[in-house]
Amino acid sequence: MSLLIDNCGELVTCDPRRGDGPLGLRTDAAVVVADTEIVWVGHSGDAPAADRYLDAGGGAVLPGFVDSHAHLVFAGDRAAEFAARMAGQRYTGGGIRTTVEATRAADDDALRAHTARLVGEALRQGTTTIEIKSGYGLTVADERRSLRVAAGFTDEVTFLGAHVVPAGADADAYTALVCGEMMDAARAYAAWVDVFCDRGAFDADQSRAVLTAGRAAGLGLRVHANQLGPGPGVQLAVDLGAASADHCTHLSDADVDALAGSATVATLLPGAEFSTRSPYPDGRRLWDAGVTVALATDCNPGSSFTSSMPFCVALAVREMGLTPAEAVWSATAGGARALRRDDVGVIRPGARADLVVLDAPSHLHLAYRPGVPLIRDVIRAGEPT
Amino acid sequence: MSLLIDNCGELVTCDPRRGDGPLGLRTDAAVVVADTEIVWVGHSGDAPAADRYLDAGGGAVLPGFVDSHAHLVFAGDRAAEFAARMAGQRYTGGGIRTTVEATRAADDDALRAHTARLVGEALRQGTTTIEIKSGYGLTVADERRSLRVAAGFTDEVTFLGAHVVPAGADADAYTALVCGEMMDAARAYAAWVDVFCDRGAFDADQSRAVLTAGRAAGLGLRVHANQLGPGPGVQLAVDLGAASADHCTHLSDADVDALAGSATVATLLPGAEFSTRSPYPDGRRLWDAGVTVALATDCNPGSSFTSSMPFCVALAVREMGLTPAEAVWSATAGGARALRRDDVGVIRPGARADLVVLDAPSHLHLAYRPGVPLIRDVIRAGEPT
Ligand SMILES: [Zn+2]
Ligand SMILES: [Zn+2]
Repeated sequence: MSLLIDNCGELVTCDPRRGDGPLGLRTDAAVVVADTEIVWVGHSGDAPAADRYLDAGGGAVLPGFVDSHAHLVFAGDRAAEFAARMAGQRYTGGGIRTTVEATRAADDDALRAHTARLVGEALRQGTTTIEIKSGYGLTVADERRSLRVAAGFTDEVTFLGAHVVPAGADADAYTALVCGEMMDAARAYAAWVDVFCDRGAFDADQSRAVLTAGRAAGLGLRVHANQLGPGPGVQLAVDLGAASADHCTHLSDADVDALAGSATVATLLPGAEFSTRSPYPDGRRLWDAGVTVALATDCNPGSSFTSSMPFCVALAVREMGLTPAEAVWSATAGGARALRRDDVGVIRPGARADLVVLDAPSHLHLAYRPGVPLIRDVIRAGEPT
Repeated sequence: MSLLIDNCGELVTCDPRRGDGPLGLRTDAAVVVADTEIVWVGHSGDAPAADRYLDAGGGAVLPGFVDSHAHLVFAGDRAAEFAARMAGQRYTGGGIRTTVEATRAADDDALRAHTARLVGEALRQGTTTIEIKSGYGLTVADERRSLRVAAGFTDEVTFLGAHVVPAGADADAYTALVCGEMMDAARAYAAWVDVFCDRGAFDADQSRAVLTAGRAAGLGLRVHANQLGPGPGVQLAVDLGAASADHCTHLSDADVDALAGSATVATLLPGAEFSTRSPYPDGRRLWDAGVTVALATDCNPGSSFTSSMPFCVALAVREMGLTPAEAVWSATAGGARALRRDDVGVIRPGARADLVVLDAPSHLHLAYRPGVPLIRDVIRAGEPT
């Protein structure tokens, strides 16, 4: 089955060889898809025939967003905690442990339904590739279950047993459990291992142990790094060749240099700063240093309950000093780099046919029109959704 | 024709006599509508029968948003100007005058279609009452045409001939035109008169002249006040009994006192600060001083091209110190006060049946889930849209 997407007023290829600037922009373009792949990109008038036709109506067409950081397997919400934090009140609820309890208490169907709802919500907002982490189970059985649920929705499953030390547990003993029995259970479902290397979570030695064990288990590496303050997370990520260091809110010059000289992507999560009223990372500094930048939602019930990549693009422009083009690149091709993928986040023959049609003439509108739902059509692996 | 909206997990009445807190919250509630009006509000199990049934599915039900400040009659966009501003570049384009030229050049059908598109977009995001200003015509004929277009979409039409002094014109001579021939043309369509009282626009004397002429023509008064810096706008608005002083970004203590002792609403427009990277007004200070606060989009192509009231609610919480409840009140009942309306922005028998069903259990989610399209159903004047 083939599909012609015609009359693309602006085509954002994210391939500089195929058009202007870092976004590889083309005008009056068309794309042809066969089955799940893009097979042709060119000028509208030159497009070959196809079985089906989608008129982009002069709108901008982009690669589907690649959200490389999301915590979608959980139950319950923490709206009251959010409201208290916004009112400047100390909140005496359980924070992340509230979500752990609710997640453990939910049955499989409920957990799957809740995750499905968020994945569907993200898809409607243009996210065609999403990474999903565990991390609200924190026992071998509960982490295994979370990963199994995640694997029902994406190939990009991340084992985050090292999210927080469970209530009452010893940090070193829990780290050993994560590296041992829990890792053994996780490797059947996960492609990645992640660790929360920050104050109040796991220190450098514990984090290194988790990542090293994950690598030995055949998993790729990701790190929650330098969110709450300066720390060893980014250096550790670079040292161990992690695909991504995520958050990167508090960086030294040495951290920036390390990222710039590495294949580790800096994944920025502005939804977290928005929803915790924290200072934003300096995206401009990273971009100018030559660091590869990705944008992701960090969707989770505690610190960033947004699933909206367009919102993250708008925030990156308003608050982190990226241009609209850089922000859009980071939300598509940058996210793909953070997942070490070259078949998504780009519009070129051979790439997966993940495309978004905007109800707007240009990618600029994602930042220029904040909060407005501009996603008109979403095509995932060749299928209109 | 009657309609029962049942299974409202949370009903935000915005009527403190009908429930808890300033939002008058009820749980397990139902609402019955007959024709265009709400006729019954109560507990789900007690609801009378109706011709039609809408299951809110346990979601929150709110009054439709009242956007009391929007500039929707124009042509063209200024995305390139926005991108340059975000990149910190001086932009040598024409600013507002670019939009004036494009608006004058557009034919009636194009202007109407463009306005319809934005009104529809706002409606899908839950805005059931919208004020629409002229101000991109700036000649008698072009302002008359803009007002005629606006009147096709709303009763809340505002004459803003005093938006900017047209290129090449003398400010006093133009003010005289606005007060004279242009006002005569406007009164057939407009309910309100507005003036941009700020540096680079109209000074105190010119603004007073416009407002006084508007009052003499039978129009209610609104003022763009204290956006770009401290100034006389707010005091003037209070002195003349304006329904609203809009922006209120730079206020002295005397300005806050004047508002608190008056029936003039302070309408805050956080989309403008977002899109111009400017400091936000202090909503907390106004609320605590007893000022009536409204939230609106300022939707316009130059400084705030959002039509999203949910986005403004989220920004008001993140950036202006309002609680989610205060922000939601300001976006509904507050907007109604700013338009001197008591039949919208509230859920009570006798009010117009404007309701929004959220795909979320609580009004908190509008701030807790920023950027996520949470509007599931919109009912306007009794009609599902
Ligand atoms: Zn995270
Ligand atoms: Zn305005």
